[in-house]
Amino acid sequence: MERKEIVESWFRKLQSSIIEALETEDGNARFGTEIWERPGGGGGVTRLLTDGNAIEKGGVNFSAVFGATPEPVKANFKTEADEFFASGVSIVIHPKNPFVPIIHMNVRYFELSDGNAWFGGGIDLTPAYVFEEDALFFHGSLKVVCDRFDSSWYQRFKENADRYFTIKHRKETRGIGGIFYDHLSAKQDSDFERLWAFTQAVGSAFAPAYTNLMAKRKQMPWGENEKQWQLHRRSRYVEFNLVYDAGTKFGLETNGRTESILMSLPPLARWESNYAPEPDSPEALSQAFFDKSADWF
Amino acid sequence: MERKEIVESWFRKLQSSIIEALETEDGNARFGTEIWERPGGGGGVTRLLTDGNAIEKGGVNFSAVFGATPEPVKANFKTEADEFFASGVSIVIHPKNPFVPIIHMNVRYFELSDGNAWFGGGIDLTPAYVFEEDALFFHGSLKVVCDRFDSSWYQRFKENADRYFTIKHRKETRGIGGIFYDHLSAKQDSDFERLWAFTQAVGSAFAPAYTNLMAKRKQMPWGENEKQWQLHRRSRYVEFNLVYDAGTKFGLETNGRTESILMSLPPLARWESNYAPEPDSPEALSQAFFDKSADWF
Repeated sequence: MERKEIVESWFRKLQSSIIEALETEDGNARFGTEIWERPGGGGGVTRLLTDGNAIEKGGVNFSAVFGATPEPVKANFKTEADEFFASGVSIVIHPKNPFVPIIHMNVRYFELSDGNAWFGGGIDLTPAYVFEEDALFFHGSLKVVCDRFDSSWYQRFKENADRYFTIKHRKETRGIGGIFYDHLSAKQDSDFERLWAFTQAVGSAFAPAYTNLMAKRKQMPWGENEKQWQLHRRSRYVEFNLVYDAGTKFGLETNGRTESILMSLPPLARWESNYAPEPDSPEALSQAFFDKSADWF
Repeated sequence: MERKEIVESWFRKLQSSIIEALETEDGNARFGTEIWERPGGGGGVTRLLTDGNAIEKGGVNFSAVFGATPEPVKANFKTEADEFFASGVSIVIHPKNPFVPIIHMNVRYFELSDGNAWFGGGIDLTPAYVFEEDALFFHGSLKVVCDRFDSSWYQRFKENADRYFTIKHRKETRGIGGIFYDHLSAKQDSDFERLWAFTQAVGSAFAPAYTNLMAKRKQMPWGENEKQWQLHRRSRYVEFNLVYDAGTKFGLETNGRTESILMSLPPLARWESNYAPEPDSPEALSQAFFDKSADWF
């Protein structure tokens, strides 16, 4: 099988298995299905959900697109290659309970007709309330995945994520990070094999890690105060995604599918001027984790 | 008096008089006052309000800053001039009642040590529900102001606003526009006199026009359905401001005062995937005004 077929077919299955895991853990959520075609070649499956038991809004998207390399892609990749192929799975889950974190994952493969190819991806967590044990569990799950491939990767990709998920104008992070890798060359077959195995391991780590956090936190009682803090933190999520996120910007500028791109935005978000949590409150203790990224190991 | 003093002193008074008019019409709102200084020279007065009777969140900001021309300003204005001066008043009001429109105004003067100077500004309206009589009244008020100076200005500045306040990735407008002018040269004294008189006329038109709309709509009964539509339209306001608004982008990139810049964001906003109003509903009739900008005269 060609690389493209291998990748596309596995990503398709990854989407289904993650949805199954999320629906099971939620108990009520059923993801809708929207199949779309890209006029230039390829298409995707957008699966969106609103108002589950635990998930307030979520999207798990698969796409595999190909054809003549669009000009903005040529500019972005500094290439003249005529044909491209890109496939990936993107996820954003906005939970209802303020104690369950938002999660984001993206894994992708990109190939050009001149033989160049790359992998990229990552998973990161955005809790409104930071539980250190959850952060350790989450980062630990990612470290285990990375360590199976290269003992330097976790630290390197963790620092990438800390740098990337920064809301510069707020001088704060979006959440507690995770791992992020981009533009890793898969031109050589040996590199492809290794990075593809790694990307599969990242994709496979998503469902067990997140359903564990859902299960642990989704029953915790919360009130108006916790909801308001969640809505406040969600506004920072919106600011990051609309102002800085490279994928969002690229998608919007290149006339991507707006609803698929902006499925990442939260169901409800709140902006209050000069908002600051009470000193020593749980909110302030969580905010401290956003003011400076932590080392977990 | 120097131009700078004339402009700064009048803008300061404009801020106060607009706040007085808004507080009176609201009946309950009291704007807080935050005085800030800019390390490089100058400063401003940020006046913010939350939870009035009619105004849910609003900001009326004045600033007058000067000093060594920052590099991003040099790049933006394609100038080598060493010193700059900039003064202006910016307003965004987010009303509680979904039938009262959001309004935005900005008037500003910019001067360089090489003798170049410019005016810019405008007022535009973002109703969740479009009432044609209100749109006619609002655009009519602006046309009257423009026509006193140049019979071509209303049409020209109205088209500027329609172009500017477009949410490209949604293929829709932010609201029903208004007028927008930018970079009008005030180097010659005669141009300064004329454009300054015009800018004062625009600034002075704000309070009567908006308090009229507040008075007319603030008592209209509304329910959950209207609130949801307002929250939905506010999400589009967020998207425009964070993705396209030139002032917001420039402010965030140049380390401006984040809370003053982002006072424009709504108190609460809602993103629902694939949201579309029921055909022939009041929401759908309003949406039609955002799908294509209208000519009011």
